[in-house]
Amino acid sequence: MTPGTGLTAAQLTEKHRPTLDRALEAIRSREFWSPHPEHPKAYGEEAPERGRQAFDALRGRRFELPGQPGSGGWTATEVSPFGLEMGIEYPRADAAAVAELLPALRAGAPAWRAAGPELRAAVCLEILSRISARTHEFGLAVMHTSGQAFMMAFQAGGPHAQDRGLEAVAYAFAEQTRVPAAADWVKPQGKRDPLRMRKEFTPVGLGVALLIGCNTFPTWNGYPGFFASLATGNPVLVKPHPRAVLPLALTVRVAREVLQEAGFDPNLVALAAEAEGDGIAKDLAVRPEVRVIDFTGSSAFGQWLESHALQARVFTEKSGVNSVLIHSTDDYQGMLANLAFSLSLYSGQMCTTPQNLLIPADGIATDAGHRSYEEVVRDLGEAVGKLLGDDARAAALLGAIVSERVRERIESAPELGEVALATREVADPEFPGATVRTPVIVKLDAARPGSESAYLAECFGPVSFAVAVGSAEDGVALLRRVIREKGAMTVAAYTTSPEVERAVEEACFDEPAQLSLNLTGGVYVNQTAAFSDFHGSGGNPAANSALVDGAFVASRFRTVEVRRMAP
Amino acid sequence: MTPGTGLTAAQLTEKHRPTLDRALEAIRSREFWSPHPEHPKAYGEEAPERGRQAFDALRGRRFELPGQPGSGGWTATEVSPFGLEMGIEYPRADAAAVAELLPALRAGAPAWRAAGPELRAAVCLEILSRISARTHEFGLAVMHTSGQAFMMAFQAGGPHAQDRGLEAVAYAFAEQTRVPAAADWVKPQGKRDPLRMRKEFTPVGLGVALLIGCNTFPTWNGYPGFFASLATGNPVLVKPHPRAVLPLALTVRVAREVLQEAGFDPNLVALAAEAEGDGIAKDLAVRPEVRVIDFTGSSAFGQWLESHALQARVFTEKSGVNSVLIHSTDDYQGMLANLAFSLSLYSGQMCTTPQNLLIPADGIATDAGHRSYEEVVRDLGEAVGKLLGDDARAAALLGAIVSERVRERIESAPELGEVALATREVADPEFPGATVRTPVIVKLDAARPGSESAYLAECFGPVSFAVAVGSAEDGVALLRRVIREKGAMTVAAYTTSPEVERAVEEACFDEPAQLSLNLTGGVYVNQTAAFSDFHGSGGNPAANSALVDGAFVASRFRTVEVRRMAP
Repeated sequence: MTPGTGLTAAQLTEKHRPTLDRALEAIRSREFWSPHPEHPKAYGEEAPERGRQAFDALRGRRFELPGQPGSGGWTATEVSPFGLEMGIEYPRADAAAVAELLPALRAGAPAWRAAGPELRAAVCLEILSRISARTHEFGLAVMHTSGQAFMMAFQAGGPHAQDRGLEAVAYAFAEQTRVPAAADWVKPQGKRDPLRMRKEFTPVGLGVALLIGCNTFPTWNGYPGFFASLATGNPVLVKPHPRAVLPLALTVRVAREVLQEAGFDPNLVALAAEAEGDGIAKDLAVRPEVRVIDFTGSSAFGQWLESHALQARVFTEKSGVNSVLIHSTDDYQGMLANLAFSLSLYSGQMCTTPQNLLIPADGIATDAGHRSYEEVVRDLGEAVGKLLGDDARAAALLGAIVSERVRERIESAPELGEVALATREVADPEFPGATVRTPVIVKLDAARPGSESAYLAECFGPVSFAVAVGSAEDGVALLRRVIREKGAMTVAAYTTSPEVERAVEEACFDEPAQLSLNLTGGVYVNQTAAFSDFHGSGGNPAANSALVDGAFVASRFRTVEVRRMAP
Repeated sequence: MTPGTGLTAAQLTEKHRPTLDRALEAIRSREFWSPHPEHPKAYGEEAPERGRQAFDALRGRRFELPGQPGSGGWTATEVSPFGLEMGIEYPRADAAAVAELLPALRAGAPAWRAAGPELRAAVCLEILSRISARTHEFGLAVMHTSGQAFMMAFQAGGPHAQDRGLEAVAYAFAEQTRVPAAADWVKPQGKRDPLRMRKEFTPVGLGVALLIGCNTFPTWNGYPGFFASLATGNPVLVKPHPRAVLPLALTVRVAREVLQEAGFDPNLVALAAEAEGDGIAKDLAVRPEVRVIDFTGSSAFGQWLESHALQARVFTEKSGVNSVLIHSTDDYQGMLANLAFSLSLYSGQMCTTPQNLLIPADGIATDAGHRSYEEVVRDLGEAVGKLLGDDARAAALLGAIVSERVRERIESAPELGEVALATREVADPEFPGATVRTPVIVKLDAARPGSESAYLAECFGPVSFAVAVGSAEDGVALLRRVIREKGAMTVAAYTTSPEVERAVEEACFDEPAQLSLNLTGGVYVNQTAAFSDFHGSGGNPAANSALVDGAFVASRFRTVEVRRMAP
């Protein structure tokens, strides 16, 4: 019996098994499903206020993690992009603390392994359901660390992240139970007695899993690895980005509570917060105890991990350059509106935001007649302008600029080429301290020497390039080259030509990359849905894994076979 | 319609689908199954003679691969450990040839991808069924390159290898079809119309897969990677060990014939033979076109691949040190007979052969009363002597020593400690030129300084160590340490104590390693059965993958999603 849940292990399993089964069905059918409501009102009338109070109660004080060993003092590193005072201090994982944390993480592993895949999944689902109940609090935590506007922080940081976590648990469970717990093996021997063996198969974790969090999507990008590792029997050490600690610290605290209540060692999950500049990820990543690493962040550090943390399975999402081929459309206004939204959402601070808009120099065919390159660029700029014309509405879509570096990139964008759409400062009516900027569109000519240095580099933030290409074929060739050399989390294309469509598909099969075709409605290239869409392909330089598929979970554990002669 | 098979693609699929379905069932149930008969007589009365004639016809001439591009002259590098003249010349893959081979391998990849998982599986099964029909020829090819005695070469190099290949095809098919080919995604939007998307999912290979073959089990160790890569859409370049080219060259030729007949580019599979000392594996492994590597061989080169071929998914089986804990038994004679066989089979030249026999210094409890350490070692030596007393029978079990290095290891074994069982030369009645040796057992005391350097290193070949340990607990601790530091493909234990059994199990869960308990009958620790047993755990330094599981296939391909607004 567990104090918080009031549930035994069997009851915990019984409680969550239907959700697990439904998730297993969803990852097979890839049809729409989610148990986590998107709408803030779905959480009850008092949820918003309760969430706000809980969030406010966290600010300006120490974030305690009762029972977590290792004491390296306290560190506060978060700055809300909306200007809200955070002042939350976390236990700092200095070298001495890490020396205590790693053995503590491992201590509970044998019991966690012995629990088996189903109970581990149930415990993970209990963690998720407690997080879900506090979605408003988590939404504010994500908002004030990432700079996402509230509605997006609520949805992407809440239900969508929880969906991705649940998806990882489902994949982990499916993978661990592909082999039965035991099998009787009887091999005929002609006239002699058959050989009879009893074989037992036990999925075992590899060791400590290290989650290296990111600033912009701490939960959405963090939950797949966190839950995939935990569900496959690995203790998880969470090293958040110094500017986005709270969402993952809350996650760690909930996980520790649930683990303890379910009779497991709470130290199976621990937080390793650091002071800005400590750089503990590099040290942790090569520790022999660390056998799995999940990372979202820069290509430079991702590649460093892949080539140095050879003792671990390393799953990385790095940077890429996303392209949209704009060849032709039978819904010109729908295309412009869809693209304008994609460029604006969270100020383009998504790994999935389009950057290079590849447009034939001699224009495109549309339902409204031929449009020249100049017209397309101008019309797109106008669509963005219209979408973001009202400051309050703009702020709710753009959110805040997450860092000085992104702000600098916006300001230096005019150096890269002729500005087709200039950025403007938006006043956030609720948070006057927030830095809010509308997107910049810069015109480039693919044929012009020197333009490569712009469109072949990731320019993270609300800067996109309207790249004039010689033809659709040139556009496909450039798209293919950019994926191969720089990677891409997303590719989109607008075309009414089956040949061009086929050519883009072939490029995405070859390189490989995920393709959205002719999006004009309420689905955007930068959004993916758990249980149905993959996030990245794992096959080009932007990422070595796709959230979430079999490869993302299969190598996090091993199956140990114990075989005996059958009686 | 295909000339050789007389079968269309649909008919090819229809022909092999029942076998594929049965294999899919077997990997789920892990019960005994094999479609490839073990007994040489099962292949028809004329099969042995036909196989011998085919094998003899290959010797002393050029091995042609019609249509394979790239010409770097010819190379002959094989020496039969049985003294038979080989004299087979293969096209040598020099730098110029490789420059032609790599683009040629890639040329057919789009059509191979478009074939889809089911047709790819059917083509792979057609390749396997043609190989199966020529099992006698393949058996001789394996025998005269590996030094395995005929019966073992026939079984391990024939049906068992084919089983592992089929198992890989089944896993690859299952993995690629976990996601449907297409899905309709309908997301409710409250009172508004739902969002409707049509999503297509296509498994795509990563690029060229490189198979680096080994000398001792060219087909058994090669087929899992070969078929896993091919079935997941990757062209395969086969780089055999210079001393064991023929079994893989035959495989390549059969695969090319089947591919061509089925309407695919035969260059999807190619051979890269080299002259002794060319060392082309190192160059090939870091080519950007190469995205998957399978390797069986030394730890040094395996680790080099893991740390240098960062552009590829690298699957390695390296060296390890296998332990047997001998604590107690209720079938002393059965234990001795089982161990004697394991030590003798193929002169211990298996990655799965036990090396360290951990025996409590104060002896063990048996059904025949207490046996001292000295008695156990002596009795085991006698069991080996009895098993190998007759030269003809000994030769049929031991096979030939595969290389000078193994012979030297046998001869220098007495330098490592007191010899409990000396090797003896065996005269092979059929092949007087063969080097045949019985196993050596050397006594070591774990407590004695300096003994570590022997039992902590792999001594590949028929040399094992009877290591006296202080107690069962000391034995388990040593076993655990050896797995962690040196890796192990197999672990075995003999004990009647539930506590000791549990302790060994926990060690194998922790490290992780595959465990065989109290084997006394006709199943040996060094043998595993496809569809049921895993070969290695992939979780300790001996190997980073287990043949065959989900992780072995899941990262060889990526799933590309193409999504559109539904009409």
